[in-house]
Amino acid sequence: MAFAAARAAIGDSEFDRDTAVVARPGEPGTYDIDLSPGWVIISAVNGGYLLAVLGRALREALPHPDPITITAHYLTASQPGPAVIRTQTVRSGRTMSTGQASLFQTDEQGGEVERIRVIAGYADLGALPDDVRTSARPPRMPSYEECVSTDDAPPPATGPIPGSTAILDRLDLRLDPATAGWAVGAPSGAGDMRGWLGLADGRDHDALSLLLAVDALPPTAFDLGLKGWTPTLELTVHIRCRPAPGPLRVAVTTRNLAGGLLEEDTQAWDSHDRLVAQSRQLARAPRG
Amino acid sequence: MAFAAARAAIGDSEFDRDTAVVARPGEPGTYDIDLSPGWVIISAVNGGYLLAVLGRALREALPHPDPITITAHYLTASQPGPAVIRTQTVRSGRTMSTGQASLFQTDEQGGEVERIRVIAGYADLGALPDDVRTSARPPRMPSYEECVSTDDAPPPATGPIPGSTAILDRLDLRLDPATAGWAVGAPSGAGDMRGWLGLADGRDHDALSLLLAVDALPPTAFDLGLKGWTPTLELTVHIRCRPAPGPLRVAVTTRNLAGGLLEEDTQAWDSHDRLVAQSRQLARAPRG
Repeated sequence: MAFAAARAAIGDSEFDRDTAVVARPGEPGTYDIDLSPGWVIISAVNGGYLLAVLGRALREALPHPDPITITAHYLTASQPGPAVIRTQTVRSGRTMSTGQASLFQTDEQGGEVERIRVIAGYADLGALPDDVRTSARPPRMPSYEECVSTDDAPPPATGPIPGSTAILDRLDLRLDPATAGWAVGAPSGAGDMRGWLGLADGRDHDALSLLLAVDALPPTAFDLGLKGWTPTLELTVHIRCRPAPGPLRVAVTTRNLAGGLLEEDTQAWDSHDRLVAQSRQLARAPRG
Repeated sequence: MAFAAARAAIGDSEFDRDTAVVARPGEPGTYDIDLSPGWVIISAVNGGYLLAVLGRALREALPHPDPITITAHYLTASQPGPAVIRTQTVRSGRTMSTGQASLFQTDEQGGEVERIRVIAGYADLGALPDDVRTSARPPRMPSYEECVSTDDAPPPATGPIPGSTAILDRLDLRLDPATAGWAVGAPSGAGDMRGWLGLADGRDHDALSLLLAVDALPPTAFDLGLKGWTPTLELTVHIRCRPAPGPLRVAVTTRNLAGGLLEEDTQAWDSHDRLVAQSRQLARAPRG
C-alpha cells in the first residue's frame, strides 16, 4: 500500500517529541510539558493528543506501561504552551495498576486552571493471555488508495467551520468517500465517519498513539449535516491489543443525538484485522 | 402488562432506602452509608448498586441532579456494611458540573481501603433541549410476558457459579429466552443478554436506578458458555434521558474477548422507546 513509509520510529517521531513529559525534580508524580501547536484543530488542542499526553505521564508514574481503560473529562479548553501534569497512583497490583492525572495551565491572572482530569487502569498488553474469541468484524471500507486524502479537502475557511487545521499536517488520514461528502456540502446524514489513519511521518501506532487515533477523525456531526464545534465532555478508551505496523482503519458512529448531546462510538482495527481500540465519547452537539 | 405494580414510589422504596447517604456533620462532601446485603450477587456487592450509591452521594454534593456521564473504577471488592464516601467538586458550571467520589471501607486491621473511585459529569436532564435525532432502534425481544422470570431460574448451587442471589429478590427481571439457555446448560454462544428490568417493589426507574440497571443482568460470559466470576474493572454510563414509567428493555452484548478481558456494551430503553442509557464496561473474563 502507498501509505507513508516508516521514516520515523516509535520513540523518535513528532508524536513522541510532542507528548514527551519531563519529571519535575523533587516533586514525584509531577511532569511538565509544552503542549505543541502542531495538534490544534480550529482553535483548540485536539482532545486525543491531550489524552496521549496524560497517558504518557501515567506510563511514567505507574508500574505498568499500557493504558487498558482510560477516561478523560475535558473541563476547560487547553491552549498550546506550558502545562503541568500531576499524577496519583490509586492502586498498584501485580497485573494491573490504577492511576489518576490532571493537566493544569496558568491563566492570565497567574492562577492554575485544571484542563482535563483522567482516571485509568494500566497493564502490560504484552503479558496478557493470547486467547481471542470475537464476533467483531472490521468496518467495510474502500482500500487506502481509494479513500480521500485530507490534502484534497477544502481549505478551512470554506469547510464546516473556519480555523486552523494544523493537526492534519501530522496525520496521514484518508476518509472513506461515503463519509466525506460533508466536505463538498453533501453529508450522508448517517452520522458515520470512517478512514485510514497513520501518522504523517510514518511512525507506526502503539498503545499511546491509539489514544490520539480514536479522536482524530472529523466529527460525525459533519456527516449529520451539522456545522460547528462538537466539544468532548468525556472520552473513554479501551486499548485491547498492541497494534501491528501500518495504518489503522478507524470507524466512528453516532446513533443518538438527544438533549443537545451525542455519543461518538469508535473502533480502531490494525493491519492484522484485530480490534485494537474501542472508545465512546459524550459531546455537545453543534447547534448548526 | 403484568409487571410489578407501582407499589413503591421513587424516594420511598428499597432502592432509595438502600442508597441513602448521610452527610457527616462538620465534614463537607463526606457521606456515610450502610451497604445493604440485599444487593449481593454470589459473594460481592453488585457493581451497579454501588455505582448508584456513589451517584447518590454526588447528587448531594453537586449543584446538578443527574449523572449524564459517570465512570467507575472498581479497585477492591466491597462488602455489605458501613462505608464512607468522600466527594470532591472538580468544576461547577452553569449547565454542568463535574465531581469525583471514592468509597472506602475499613479492613480487619482498622485501615481504610478504597473500594471504588468515580468521576462524573452532572446536569439537569429536565433542562436539556428537547431535540432528538436518532437512528438507534430498541432491541428486538419478546414481550414481558413471553420472557423468563428469574423465579424460574435454577438454584445458585446448580447455576454457573454457586453463591448468593439476594439481588434477584430486589429485581423484576425477565430474560429473553434466546439469551437464557445457559441456565439449563445450553448457552447460545453469541455473547448476548437481554431482558425486561423493573424493581421488585414496583418503583419506577429514574436516573439513579439506571446506574443499577446497566449492570444488573447476568454476565454475557454465561451466554458465551463460560462459567465463573466476571469482575468489572471499569464501567462508564451515559444517561441520555429521564426514563418513563414501566420496566426497561436492557440489552447487553459482548463482541470481543481478548487478552483475558471482555467488554460489555449495554443499552437501556424505556416504555416510550427512548434510549435512556448506554454503558460499556471492561471486565476480566472467566477462565472457565
